[in-house]
Amino acid sequence: MRGVVLYAPGRVGVENRDDPRIEQPTDAVIRLSATCVCGSDLWPYRGIEKVQGPAPMGHEYVGVVEEVGSAVTSVRPGQFVVGSFFASDNTCEICRSGYQSSCVHREPMGALGAQAEYLRVPLADGTLVATPDVPPADLVPSYLAASDVLGTGWFAAVAAEAGPGRTVAVVGDGAVGLLGVLAARQLGAERIIAMSRHESRQKLALDFGATDIVTERGDEGVARIKELTGGLGAHSVIEAVGTQESMMQAIGSTRPGGHVGFVGVTHDVALPGMPLFFSHVHLHGGPAPVRRFLPELLALIGDRTIDPGRVFDLELPLDEAAEGYRAMDERRAIKTLLRP
Amino acid sequence: MRGVVLYAPGRVGVENRDDPRIEQPTDAVIRLSATCVCGSDLWPYRGIEKVQGPAPMGHEYVGVVEEVGSAVTSVRPGQFVVGSFFASDNTCEICRSGYQSSCVHREPMGALGAQAEYLRVPLADGTLVATPDVPPADLVPSYLAASDVLGTGWFAAVAAEAGPGRTVAVVGDGAVGLLGVLAARQLGAERIIAMSRHESRQKLALDFGATDIVTERGDEGVARIKELTGGLGAHSVIEAVGTQESMMQAIGSTRPGGHVGFVGVTHDVALPGMPLFFSHVHLHGGPAPVRRFLPELLALIGDRTIDPGRVFDLELPLDEAAEGYRAMDERRAIKTLLRP
Repeated sequence: MRGVVLYAPGRVGVENRDDPRIEQPTDAVIRLSATCVCGSDLWPYRGIEKVQGPAPMGHEYVGVVEEVGSAVTSVRPGQFVVGSFFASDNTCEICRSGYQSSCVHREPMGALGAQAEYLRVPLADGTLVATPDVPPADLVPSYLAASDVLGTGWFAAVAAEAGPGRTVAVVGDGAVGLLGVLAARQLGAERIIAMSRHESRQKLALDFGATDIVTERGDEGVARIKELTGGLGAHSVIEAVGTQESMMQAIGSTRPGGHVGFVGVTHDVALPGMPLFFSHVHLHGGPAPVRRFLPELLALIGDRTIDPGRVFDLELPLDEAAEGYRAMDERRAIKTLLRP
Repeated sequence: MRGVVLYAPGRVGVENRDDPRIEQPTDAVIRLSATCVCGSDLWPYRGIEKVQGPAPMGHEYVGVVEEVGSAVTSVRPGQFVVGSFFASDNTCEICRSGYQSSCVHREPMGALGAQAEYLRVPLADGTLVATPDVPPADLVPSYLAASDVLGTGWFAAVAAEAGPGRTVAVVGDGAVGLLGVLAARQLGAERIIAMSRHESRQKLALDFGATDIVTERGDEGVARIKELTGGLGAHSVIEAVGTQESMMQAIGSTRPGGHVGFVGVTHDVALPGMPLFFSHVHLHGGPAPVRRFLPELLALIGDRTIDPGRVFDLELPLDEAAEGYRAMDERRAIKTLLRP
């Protein structure tokens, strides 16, 4: 089959790889309907995360089940399924508490390479959620978004305790930040402030439910959020970038007793103790337990309540993956969908 | 009046200071029944926190109201009152949400110097809580504990979401950690693991409700907590030290999705982003909003349900404050009560 590999920073290609097959009785193999490039794929692409190339890439996937192992009972060949970036058993104590991305048996899907024609999914019963029917083609991008960026934005909004009566600020205007806006809207937030200086992203944020746009960042961004919230700061802040500046911007924008939900992977971040102590915020985040939210998110997509697939503003055949990476790296695209 | 001052690191004395008087119509002046030395007083005493000596010291106080300003309506002369280390209006939006120690009008009591015969308390209506009657002498140490260390340990336990069915680990065996054990017990925790290597403190922890003692610290302490919790970590961890090691020990001892309540003042701490991200913990803490808990805590003390005053294992006349500091600095005393 064809699959994307990263050879070295900046060098992505598509080559023939072995077809995946059932290795464990709990595995499934799926034929991908669509896959995509993640903001976090840009970390190794930019050389910030070390990688031993050639490395298979991609951890976002939707597709049709081809084959299942002998122990799999909850999905069957022919079903359309969505999974997330960690395979999880969904039965251990950590999964049952809603933290499937820290499952005691978790397996990172990125190592298997979801930017490909086929994908082996371990722990299929715990990992995959099937839709009632194979969906119409126009819904596929939204289901694909549920695999990571929607689930991650949703977790950030839940971690930030977005809800009725709350003012939510969103740091980061990538796909996750934009879908954090959508999630905060669905969760009933009263006011949603998107922090963005890019016109097309501002527009999508407003379409997804943002009520205010703030273009300042850093200390000026914090000052602007305070100005908009009677000097106190937002109740809930979604952090969807993962840099030192964005984390401090998120913490500084939150009122005492408020909540920061952080999902940007915090490379090269060190949170200084004293400002954190006196900020009085709640801090929660990490790799989103997308599996917790999948049943609810698939239902909202299936009945067309939400349209998260709009974050894909570039669609390419799998073989043109390199251009998909480039466009995201140069911020010409919010998110690239790849068609195997 | 007599009052404690810090001249320079390691040099504490008691000297004559001006009697405090009503300066604002919202002030009260109280005659102190007892005051004490806080673990956080040791930061400037040890020269870790810079101080311009001579500086008045102390922020923990109980006493009898002498005089109130013209705007004060909720306390009156003759009443026995307890307040905390930040004066707060208890009416602003932040106070109403339970974060009185971040009140928009807060004033640090430490600057006024509670280790003295008399104390001016700003925002008296919002800050002070009166007991139904002037209490018997043997309850005074427990009421004094409510002023800071009990309220702080309680907040840490609440922030860590200690409660029924939960395993709680406590990092730090000072007065706050020990009262975190007591708080976790009162909040209904199933299992409480005190981390301590000092016999007298272990004993008090067990009396306060600890079910297990762990003497290891750092990575070994984390490994031991994991061992005791089926490899997962505690649901709730109270951090009551404030060093880099203790913060990492607390985060490492918490299961994914669990809660860390941190109340040790985080001097020289920098939390590394990646371990925090993948720990999946909830992190909440800061200067305890003791005022939130005072009505409940005073009731529990008044009916002798709890006996937090047991953390005072050294009692001295105010004039011997220097020995009280020394004994705590050398860890000969858990906490020193001073009688004006």
